[in-house]
Amino acid sequence: MVKVTIDPWGSFLVKDYEKLIGNYGLEAFTDSLIKKLPNPNKLMRRKIIFAHTDLIKVVNAIKNKKDFYALTGIMPSLEQIHLGTKLVIENIKYFQNQGAKTYVLVADLEAAATRGLSLEEGRKRALSFHIPAYIALGLNPKKTSFYFQSTNENVKNLGYIFSKKITLNEFRAIYGTTEPGRIMSSLLQAGDILFPQLEKRMPGVIPVGPDQSPHILLSRDIVNRTRSSFNFVLPSGLYNKYTPSLDGGLKMSKSKPESCITIPEDIEKACKKIRRGFSGGRNTLEEHKRLGGMPEKDMAFELLKQHFIEDDKKLQKIHNEYKAGKLMSGDIKDIACKELTKFMKDFNKKLEKAKNIVPSLKFI
Amino acid sequence: MVKVTIDPWGSFLVKDYEKLIGNYGLEAFTDSLIKKLPNPNKLMRRKIIFAHTDLIKVVNAIKNKKDFYALTGIMPSLEQIHLGTKLVIENIKYFQNQGAKTYVLVADLEAAATRGLSLEEGRKRALSFHIPAYIALGLNPKKTSFYFQSTNENVKNLGYIFSKKITLNEFRAIYGTTEPGRIMSSLLQAGDILFPQLEKRMPGVIPVGPDQSPHILLSRDIVNRTRSSFNFVLPSGLYNKYTPSLDGGLKMSKSKPESCITIPEDIEKACKKIRRGFSGGRNTLEEHKRLGGMPEKDMAFELLKQHFIEDDKKLQKIHNEYKAGKLMSGDIKDIACKELTKFMKDFNKKLEKAKNIVPSLKFI
Repeated sequence: MVKVTIDPWGSFLVKDYEKLIGNYGLEAFTDSLIKKLPNPNKLMRRKIIFAHTDLIKVVNAIKNKKDFYALTGIMPSLEQIHLGTKLVIENIKYFQNQGAKTYVLVADLEAAATRGLSLEEGRKRALSFHIPAYIALGLNPKKTSFYFQSTNENVKNLGYIFSKKITLNEFRAIYGTTEPGRIMSSLLQAGDILFPQLEKRMPGVIPVGPDQSPHILLSRDIVNRTRSSFNFVLPSGLYNKYTPSLDGGLKMSKSKPESCITIPEDIEKACKKIRRGFSGGRNTLEEHKRLGGMPEKDMAFELLKQHFIEDDKKLQKIHNEYKAGKLMSGDIKDIACKELTKFMKDFNKKLEKAKNIVPSLKFI
Repeated sequence: MVKVTIDPWGSFLVKDYEKLIGNYGLEAFTDSLIKKLPNPNKLMRRKIIFAHTDLIKVVNAIKNKKDFYALTGIMPSLEQIHLGTKLVIENIKYFQNQGAKTYVLVADLEAAATRGLSLEEGRKRALSFHIPAYIALGLNPKKTSFYFQSTNENVKNLGYIFSKKITLNEFRAIYGTTEPGRIMSSLLQAGDILFPQLEKRMPGVIPVGPDQSPHILLSRDIVNRTRSSFNFVLPSGLYNKYTPSLDGGLKMSKSKPESCITIPEDIEKACKKIRRGFSGGRNTLEEHKRLGGMPEKDMAFELLKQHFIEDDKKLQKIHNEYKAGKLMSGDIKDIACKELTKFMKDFNKKLEKAKNIVPSLKFI
């Protein structure tokens, strides 16, 4: 596990993210770009978004009121959502508010191929949990086109057609692996990323976590190689940092359940995990008062920053008081727990409401 | 090009076909198996079919009047049919007559992926030429389910799902290549081969030329690896020899147009090619009369045997008279030309008639 120092307000990038930018040809998410985005969301303002690819295309579409799209997916495996997914949905919601045609795909076919989940079961889970959860997290269901990979002719066709456009060695260079299952699911994702353009060529933004960046790269390669037949516009990527593991690791993961919070989750259990989490407090009370806390190393503070406090001033105040030694690490954990409780209760209420909307959704 | 001696009536196999049987684990097409097939067609009787995989499953289904299926495909590239395809259709027709549920797929998605043919163009060509041609060659349109790969949800889904069931190394062992385009189109073909069983698990026979045998092998491997999720019946393969090139090469191919006859083709041109073809005549008239002709090396005779003479007695008579030196190689070419003319005229007439049927066909 790579250890990463989290810097809550600074604009420099931690080493791992810098490496990612270098390896995948991403562009840094700069202040000047943020200024071009109308009403940037908290992830943008706080540089939880650390990089992008070609986002200027989407920025210009927003500015000139031209068509563009935003797309993300649902992996209907467990009836849980990862906090990283919450970040992606927040970004999708942002672009939806800016006028993006919004697509949310259910990766039922990938779930079947890679996890042996039957299409029926994937469909059932998506309808009963994931789609309502995405709505509960803020997507406007009336402005979102949902679809299932398994019933989207165009996506599947594109996946097969794209297969001829990439060699095994190129695939290896992008993904580091060449197993057929991996190849096919990646080509299917390229199909997802580009199919909205079949109707109309337009810019599109795919907000993802760092581990999904190869898909953006592959899609862009494919666009370049299918110029003569498709002439797609190169899709743009937007990359958020991981939500770190509560033990301070780079990425929160279900493989370490004691350091991972999912949505939904039993509130008491989640608070217990937060309380056991890695903090930025000093060794003694005296030391803490003298040197101040270290919000940049504090996982509870990171949760507040990435997920639970919307208001920058409120967050800044907590940050400053913690750093000044006025707030103790236990205080930060209390606040995180309180805000998480508020969030989870609100989510559960919205989830139940959203479930009632599902039957009226339009699927493409 | 591997040179192959064609043996018209003998039951032994030429070296290349023997090798194929060894490499792909095929079973020889034996007299005892032929006896189990009701009213074997001329390809079976004449051992133009040289091997099979597990055909006993289908033999038993015929015998016990159980459900089984036969499947073949159309590659809608040129508006021409290969003589090798004619052999496959003859076998499909045989099994259709024995009660097989019959499926003919249009490989429009493969054509798009591997040859850059748009789905629209592939569809158009299949409807205007290939499907009517298959009907003209004897398929009963009322008993045949046609479909397009690009619109068959199940086939495409199976292709993606199967991708997880095979490693790159296994793919290399079967196909000798590992390019993503090849992987995807082969998995799609496995989807084609197995999808009829989604409705009902049953034996099925896929008549193919030797170069298609890897697809049968892959499908059977996949059946073994998806026992727990699908429990398909292992599909059977039936393998016909190639129609040799008119210059005596192993396989007739469009890459040597002067040695290749397609359906349809200008009759005069086709006859000219036959007359220039490799013959089994001796160097001089005297020698020919003394030693007799060599039907086993005669490409015109091979055409009669594989394609144009249905009646075994009639073919045997020509064979015997040629071998006895009573018929000259020019005579065999004349007969081949005459029979080809009859066939082409009949085909053209039936093709026009079949075109009128297309609008009333049911597609699945």
